[in-house]
Formats: sequence, structure tokens, C-alpha cells
Amino acid sequence: MNIALDMMGGDFAPDEAVKGAMAYLSEASDPAHLLLIGDETRVQALIQQYPLKPGYFTIIHASQVIDMHEHPTKALKEKQHSSIAIGFHLLATGKADAFISAGNTGAMLVGALYSIKPIEGISRPTIGAYMPRENGKLGLLLDAGINADCKPENLNQFAILGSLFVKHVWNIDNPSVALLNIGEEEGKGNLLAQATFPLLKQNELIHFIGNIEGRDIFLDKADVIVCEGFTGNIILKMAESIFDIIKRRNIHDSYFDRFEFEQYGGVPVLGVNKPVIIGHGISHGPSFKNMILLAIKIIETELIEKIRKSFKAQ
Amino acid sequence: MNIALDMMGGDFAPDEAVKGAMAYLSEASDPAHLLLIGDETRVQALIQQYPLKPGYFTIIHASQVIDMHEHPTKALKEKQHSSIAIGFHLLATGKADAFISAGNTGAMLVGALYSIKPIEGISRPTIGAYMPRENGKLGLLLDAGINADCKPENLNQFAILGSLFVKHVWNIDNPSVALLNIGEEEGKGNLLAQATFPLLKQNELIHFIGNIEGRDIFLDKADVIVCEGFTGNIILKMAESIFDIIKRRNIHDSYFDRFEFEQYGGVPVLGVNKPVIIGHGISHGPSFKNMILLAIKIIETELIEKIRKSFKAQ
Repeated sequence: MNIALDMMGGDFAPDEAVKGAMAYLSEASDPAHLLLIGDETRVQALIQQYPLKPGYFTIIHASQVIDMHEHPTKALKEKQHSSIAIGFHLLATGKADAFISAGNTGAMLVGALYSIKPIEGISRPTIGAYMPRENGKLGLLLDAGINADCKPENLNQFAILGSLFVKHVWNIDNPSVALLNIGEEEGKGNLLAQATFPLLKQNELIHFIGNIEGRDIFLDKADVIVCEGFTGNIILKMAESIFDIIKRRNIHDSYFDRFEFEQYGGVPVLGVNKPVIIGHGISHGPSFKNMILLAIKIIETELIEKIRKSFKAQ
Repeated sequence: MNIALDMMGGDFAPDEAVKGAMAYLSEASDPAHLLLIGDETRVQALIQQYPLKPGYFTIIHASQVIDMHEHPTKALKEKQHSSIAIGFHLLATGKADAFISAGNTGAMLVGALYSIKPIEGISRPTIGAYMPRENGKLGLLLDAGINADCKPENLNQFAILGSLFVKHVWNIDNPSVALLNIGEEEGKGNLLAQATFPLLKQNELIHFIGNIEGRDIFLDKADVIVCEGFTGNIILKMAESIFDIIKRRNIHDSYFDRFEFEQYGGVPVLGVNKPVIIGHGISHGPSFKNMILLAIKIIETELIEKIRKSFKAQ
């Protein structure tokens, strides 16, 4: 198993990516092979400082970096020697089994959509956001911002993708799915929610429990919450800002500590043909380690194959 | 000045409404006259317990109550002797200068839209939600849930309504207006946000500062934040749930205490021809007092007349 890791992505690259790789390799009993994509000189130098278990990694030189604020499509096209472009090339050619980056999110999405491509039958791949609950569990909210305008059918597909992820990767049997709405009864909400409800209700691939409201997001009401990416992104950013405020005000609370989304590593792009994990720009070592573990879990559980089968059966 | 108060609205009616009236009348140096609409016997009995300054109130008997979960339009039509129906009758006939209720929100909105009617030129009246900022200020987010689907022109009108309210009632000169979006640059966002941006930019009645994101809602970036009511309602309910969690976890913090939305009293229905204030169902005495004060401020600042002039000039 080969996991490609973009060493140049994120605010603290490549140092934190190296630290994450070191932590993973030293803790895993039978580690996967890591393909470390980045500036060879810099990565080599860092490995002196943070030694990696020998024999379990290969450095793949990338002479370019796509910066956080570059235009995704343009940058990917023009910077063929960037770590992100190389990562997708390795993934597309089968040399890597998963690709992880905390770099330019847009470029990661464009790469996932255009080089790895959506699974047949899926019109809109999605990324989610983890919503912590007081009982220690997590909910998966999707879409978290890549699909700002959605059709009912998109939300219906997000529901299936989210359910399969939560079931296989989080080991939750028969995960519950709710539609985020502004009212509990069927028929409530905006036109999109009204039209989505019957689709979810009829969808035999999911366990739909109905509408939930904004007040229910942090309660353990549904394992999977679906909404369009505009609302989803506002929710995610708002939750992140709550964590910032909690920290700024010096509040120490074990629940609100779990609003530090960095700790979860990253989120998978669900609905594309290979495992692609996107990390937060501020990712540190533990996040990179967690993203490697998530990529391995997705590969080992054959999530992508299971998604493919679900959509083929429809 | 006559302020009509629904004594039967809210979870703790009529007790808390009487307490609020008592607090208002005892604290005001030159109080307005209150029209207390509700079950006369019950209200009279409560006044023994919570005495009201004599000569400053009139009890107006209402033999019916619209419950919190009744269908608004149906209930208003069938219960002509309900406190809400009577309140709107008093308002429409000029016997009251403002109407306040913490009762069935839907019935209050239907009453406002159909008996008081929107101001000419306003296609969608709106209600907002107060977003507390760490510096002690408040932001006004609107729409907070009554207009689930909006056109760009609706958001543009919300921006004007919000600006006028904040300017006159909160005394903030040249209030800043932002468009809630999922990206900062012009051109970002869903189709609605993309189409709304240029309207706001060209609107000479407002001080538009551009897009803000979910992370900025609790920062003091804009006095007025506009969005459609679906997202707005999710934000409001999510903020309310944060307060619930803060309380449940026994966190004591002066900033998060301001997430208890009850303390603000209620929100005005902006864009209708008379002052209508809707309170939270869980309103207690201080909320009712604050709603009376808000109604008076709206009357004294001639907000409705100023809104009317702004929309006439367009």
C-alpha cells in the first residue's frame, strides 16, 4: 500500500508533514509505504531532524508548490511539477493508493474531479465536516462548501456517500441520516429542502430519520446531516469561530476542545474514484498522522469499491 | 402612545407578561399607555400580585388564545377573539401604535403581513436575529427564517431595512452591511449571493462592505448581515444551541451569556406599516419590558415613516 503525502501543503509545511510521517511510521506495527512529495533537499534535511523509519518511505521531488491563494485550475495546469499535480499523477497511474494534502483546497478538488474523476453515477462529489457531540461521537455534515448550489438529487447522493463513509470508516451500523431544515415536519423549509425530503424518504440505501434544525447539529440526533454547501460552509466556519472564541476567552472545556477541527486530520473527497484526503491549512504533525490513518482505513475497508457498487445498483 | 401587549403569548403567559408590564410602568418616568390583551379574569388576578401603576393600562378581554402549534392562517381566521387577532385589530384601526407578542410566531407574521400589510415597495418583510459580539455590540442578521427562499432583490431590501433599524433604533451612524457568503471576493458563493453582491454594491442607501464568512458572524465586522432565511434560521438556532451547551456544561462567561437571546426582548417585523414585535416563546418579565421599550423606541424614532420614505424614494 502506497500513500502519497504532499509535503508542501499547509501553513507549516514541510516540517509538520515530516513530523506526521515520523509519528505514523514509528507507531504503526506494519506501516504502509509513504510517498513523500516535495522539495527533496528540504525534506531530506528535515528527516535528519525527525528521522523516519528506514525502508518505509520514498521521497519524490517536486520542484514547484501551489500556494494557498492561487487559482486552482490555472495553478494545476501551469505547475505540472507541483506536489499536488505530482500527487494526482501518482494516484491516477496507480503508483499511489491514496493522496493526502493540506495544501490549496481548490487545487485538491480540481485534481480529484478532473484527474481521478467522479465515480460513475455521482454527479457531485462532496466533502464533509465533522460535528462533535457531547457524548464523544461525531456527526458528518455534508456538503461543507464545495457545492454551493445543489439540486435535490445531489443531497440524496450526499446522504448515500455520507452513510457509507460513516458505516465503514467509523463502524456505525445503519447510520441515521437527517436533512438540515428550518422546521421538523415534512413540507417545511425552502424549495430545495421540500423537494429533497421525499427523495431521502424513498431512498432505500439510507436510514432517513427526517428533518433536523440548526439547534440539533451538535446533538446526537443524526450520524449524517445533509445540506447544500452554502449553508454547510457557513456552519463549519461558524463552528470554527466558536472554537476561536472559546480559546480567546480562556475557556477550558473538554467538549469545546473538540471543536478544534485540526485534530480530526482531514476530510475525504467522497464520490471520486480514489481516496483523496484534504487537510486543514493549519495542520500540524498529529493531523498528518491522522490523515494517513484515515487514508489507510478507507483503503482497507474498500470504501471506494462499496460506493461504486451502491451507485451501480441504483 | 398606546402599546398593545399580548398577555397570553409565550410559555409563561400571562404571568411573565404582567411582570414585564409592571417593571416597565414602575421604571418609566413618563410611561406609555399599555393595552393588555388577554383573559381579563386571569390578568386581573395577576395584577393583585404584581401591581401595575394605576391609570397607565387598560385590560382588553380576549376570550381565545392561539396556541404555539396552531396553523397560523387558520387560527387567525377562526379565532377572531384571540389576543393576537384583537391586537392586530387594535393596530390596524389605530387604537394601538404598536403590538407585541411572544405567542405563535407564524400567527404574528400572518397578522403583520395581512392586517398591517407590507410598506409599499417592500416585497418581503423580514425579521432579524441579534448576533452578540465580544466588544459588547450586537449585529443584526436578517432574514432569520421567515423568507426561506429569496431573490437578490429581497436581500437588497433586507439590507436597507436592517440599516435603517440599526441606524435609528441602535443609534449607529452609517451602519455597515455585509453579505453572508462562502468566500470573501466578489463572484464567490452560490448563485443567490453572486447575484446579490452587485445589487448591494450599487445600493446608495446602504454602506456595503462586501462579503463576510461564517467565521465573521460573531466578529464586529458588519452591523447588518444579510442572507436568505434558510441559512439565517440555521445560524440563529445553532447560536441558541451553543448557549444551551454553555449552560449545560456550567461554563460561566460574560460573552456567551449574551447568547441568551431572551434578554434582547424580541425582534421587530421590519417592512410592515406599523411596529410589530415578536418575542421568544420562553420570554420572561424582563423580555416583555424590553419589548415595550423597543416598541416605544421604534415609535419615537419614527422608524416606520423613515422606512416608508426610503422605499418611496427608490
